[in-house]
Amino acid sequence: MSTSSRCAACRHLRRRCPSDCIFAPYFPANDPHRFACVHKIYGSSKVGNMLQDLPVELRAEAADAICIEAECRVQDPVYGCVRMISLLQQQIHNAESQLVKARAEIAVLGSHAQELRHHGQDI
Amino acid sequence: MSTSSRCAACRHLRRRCPSDCIFAPYFPANDPHRFACVHKIYGSSKVGNMLQDLPVELRAEAADAICIEAECRVQDPVYGCVRMISLLQQQIHNAESQLVKARAEIAVLGSHAQELRHHGQDI
Repeated sequence: MSTSSRCAACRHLRRRCPSDCIFAPYFPANDPHRFACVHKIYGSSKVGNMLQDLPVELRAEAADAICIEAECRVQDPVYGCVRMISLLQQQIHNAESQLVKARAEIAVLGSHAQELRHHGQDI
Repeated sequence: MSTSSRCAACRHLRRRCPSDCIFAPYFPANDPHRFACVHKIYGSSKVGNMLQDLPVELRAEAADAICIEAECRVQDPVYGCVRMISLLQQQIHNAESQLVKARAEIAVLGSHAQELRHHGQDI
């Protein structure tokens, strides 16, 4: 493979991109930031091994997930994507609290409507 | 530091645990699995650097988050903790859909109650 068609990983690692490069399908040359993040957080050898250990058909999704995690950790070196998990858990807690309140309101309105209906019948 | 008081990281790496060990405060000897996971996913040198680059007071929380991410990836080598993010996003979507329905129901019940009240006044 010529130098100009090296993948982002091989460019970053300043090496020849072999025809069976484990990174090439998931780290295209036009997105150097993607590989730079995973390299900084996991190192190329760990990422290569993680992909290699998976069946080919699962590698693209694994590479995407690994990139998300690495980008989160580059942006937030303390919490990484665990911060997103905490924020989402908080958001679920809020939505569920509102749902409990809304259901209580429905129960009150429902019984109120029933009372009014009985009252109407009494008149 | 004697061999018996080595931290989980130094035991795993079969090395002497120095008195200023970067791992010791966050990887106690009684939880070897915790270090084994981060070692498998990030490697000890990356984890050491990630902790070293942070102010001391943030390292414990960073070590916990790094462990969560590593344990998720060991359990789920394709999606890691990104699967949890997807599940939580789905859960929020469901809770919010139910909330929209509940609010619509409240609006219907409210206007229905008002009609019944007017109807009662008419009689």
